[in-house]
Amino acid sequence: MKTYKIVLLKGDGIGPEIVTQAVKVLNRAAEKFGFAISYDEALLGGCAIDATGVPLPQETIDKCKAADSTLLGAVGGPKWDGMPGNLRPEAGLLGIRGALGLYANLRPAVIFKPLREASPLKTEIIGDNLDILVVRELTGGIYFGEHGKKTVNGAEAAYDTEIYSVPEIERIARVGFEMASKRDGRLCSVDKANVLESSRLWRKTVARIGKEEYPNIELSNLYVDNCAMQLVRNPKQFDVIVTSNIFGDILSDEASMISGSIGMLPSASLGAGKAGLYEPVHGSAPDIAGTGTANPLATILSAAMMLRYSLEEYEAADAIENAVCEILKTARTPDIYTEGMQKVTCEEMGDLVCKIL
Amino acid sequence: MKTYKIVLLKGDGIGPEIVTQAVKVLNRAAEKFGFAISYDEALLGGCAIDATGVPLPQETIDKCKAADSTLLGAVGGPKWDGMPGNLRPEAGLLGIRGALGLYANLRPAVIFKPLREASPLKTEIIGDNLDILVVRELTGGIYFGEHGKKTVNGAEAAYDTEIYSVPEIERIARVGFEMASKRDGRLCSVDKANVLESSRLWRKTVARIGKEEYPNIELSNLYVDNCAMQLVRNPKQFDVIVTSNIFGDILSDEASMISGSIGMLPSASLGAGKAGLYEPVHGSAPDIAGTGTANPLATILSAAMMLRYSLEEYEAADAIENAVCEILKTARTPDIYTEGMQKVTCEEMGDLVCKIL
Ligand SMILES: CC(C)[C@H](C(=O)O)[C@@H](O)C(=O)O
Ligand SMILES: CC(C)[C@H](C(=O)O)[C@@H](O)C(=O)O
Repeated sequence: MKTYKIVLLKGDGIGPEIVTQAVKVLNRAAEKFGFAISYDEALLGGCAIDATGVPLPQETIDKCKAADSTLLGAVGGPKWDGMPGNLRPEAGLLGIRGALGLYANLRPAVIFKPLREASPLKTEIIGDNLDILVVRELTGGIYFGEHGKKTVNGAEAAYDTEIYSVPEIERIARVGFEMASKRDGRLCSVDKANVLESSRLWRKTVARIGKEEYPNIELSNLYVDNCAMQLVRNPKQFDVIVTSNIFGDILSDEASMISGSIGMLPSASLGAGKAGLYEPVHGSAPDIAGTGTANPLATILSAAMMLRYSLEEYEAADAIENAVCEILKTARTPDIYTEGMQKVTCEEMGDLVCKIL
Repeated sequence: MKTYKIVLLKGDGIGPEIVTQAVKVLNRAAEKFGFAISYDEALLGGCAIDATGVPLPQETIDKCKAADSTLLGAVGGPKWDGMPGNLRPEAGLLGIRGALGLYANLRPAVIFKPLREASPLKTEIIGDNLDILVVRELTGGIYFGEHGKKTVNGAEAAYDTEIYSVPEIERIARVGFEMASKRDGRLCSVDKANVLESSRLWRKTVARIGKEEYPNIELSNLYVDNCAMQLVRNPKQFDVIVTSNIFGDILSDEASMISGSIGMLPSASLGAGKAGLYEPVHGSAPDIAGTGTANPLATILSAAMMLRYSLEEYEAADAIENAVCEILKTARTPDIYTEGMQKVTCEEMGDLVCKIL
């Protein structure tokens, strides 16, 4: 029997609870679809700071590199907010992305039919489904460019550099085109080419890859300010969006919120190999940690993405996603509760998904 | 009688038509409130490129510098899209902001009661009013930082630098605090301090100015990705937002769209002196230029902002704004037309505002 090696980074806040439920669901899927999973745990974020003094211990990197894939809960919390930048939980997150070369962040913004009422947008605009995939570059741009302090006209100044090279743009463009080719065949590249040098190189490079390698994908371009408007005005115009690290950070969060299902959304971060890092879009919610009210579905759906993109267990992935859609019709954790539904805890939700599976 | 010197930059597309209506309204207000205006015209954007080869002739800068204020229509159009970056209409816009030192861009996102149906957000979220002011830094950051090409590991790369000095942050922070002190007393500073060095300096500096100079203003901080979400989830939580040039570009457009009244929104760009540059938020709409269907209200409201912020003719400013609110109850240009209203042309709309005045 095939056995996959998965590293669990439970992280902080509700991280451990939601990962526990996802593991339960993974095990049930493994049993049903005939594969096995061996788990190892490692530290990332606040819990790593507490235990080792740094948010990303070398051991964590080594374990993730040796694994078939990594499942992350969530990191961060007020406890570590006062720490200097390089010793904060977020630094662990940026560090692991860089260390594993996870240059492509896939962030679906979808509406789960039973939750479509939750979108802040009017029903005429949102209809009863929305399915956008934001492909965000994750190991370049202003997140990783040169930064520091400077003196400008005798005054203290600080700077960060947005920088992209042609190969960096090419590889993320290919991810965008590939995703579009498996979906509706439309890719929108977002930049600020009317102002930024790096955006002009971005636009030119994406256009060339499109022409040379994906002539059948419909490529369009939007300025980032316009895209931020269009997501609100008419989000259904989008299929796949590909953009830089910082623009992707902003636009994917905006798109998630528009779906109205932010507590439900998974994400995948992929690199050159098959291994990836999978995590829910929501945060570590330290205020509700340990109360049993956390919603584990985004983590369970992240596990499904892992089965699809890293382990290629497509049937198992589909089955989990279908089970989640099914369960939403009757049972809800408090964050998505509406009248007439059964209100369940984090653990009960995990059990219910397993049962349907 | 007081005579103000105003430069008109009619620009491209619908620019000339909408500025003509705003001038008509300004003249009517001058007559009523006892001042005079002398106008001069200058070229900016595509029309400047056609006439002089550059988007911002020196003569335009000189005229604007000598004037009490400047009213701009809109610039740009497909005709000039193929030009190199520094010879495009947008370069004229960035150039004039820089040349006049207009470091503070005020972008109100308001809902006009008669148009509240137009918001893409659900009625429960938007209620029947929304009044956010985005204060965007306009002459610094990644728009004006060092940029260029580089070779990285043998590959072509391009970069732009996000850079802010303490005095640049201080002065825009003060604008934010001043605006908040005249409104609801709440300022939200938006940055990406969990990642960017420049944002950490931004946050620290804004906090210091708040503590030292505006202890009565309630200051909060949001990361830009979270702000992009909050604007959709609950825009009413915001009073004044202050942020960098690029984040302000994105967030102010998002906020405008949320108001549902983007064709109605004015903006002001201010510097150290009283003179400013006033322009509608919408673009040059070349597709409808000359058809008489353009909506002049955003430009008329920009003229009202000019009366308020640069000429200190407060009564005249209020009167124009009230007239616009009044007229919306009965007459509409095609872009905001709804059944039961009188459909009017650009020119008729200008006349109607004058009549109410
Ligand atoms: C926590 C933060 C550093 C991170 C980012 O900006 O990448 C987060 O917002 C995300 O989107 O994963
Ligand atoms: C046209 C463009 C250069 C400009 C900007 O980015 O500043 C515009 O989007 C704006 O907001 O005024």
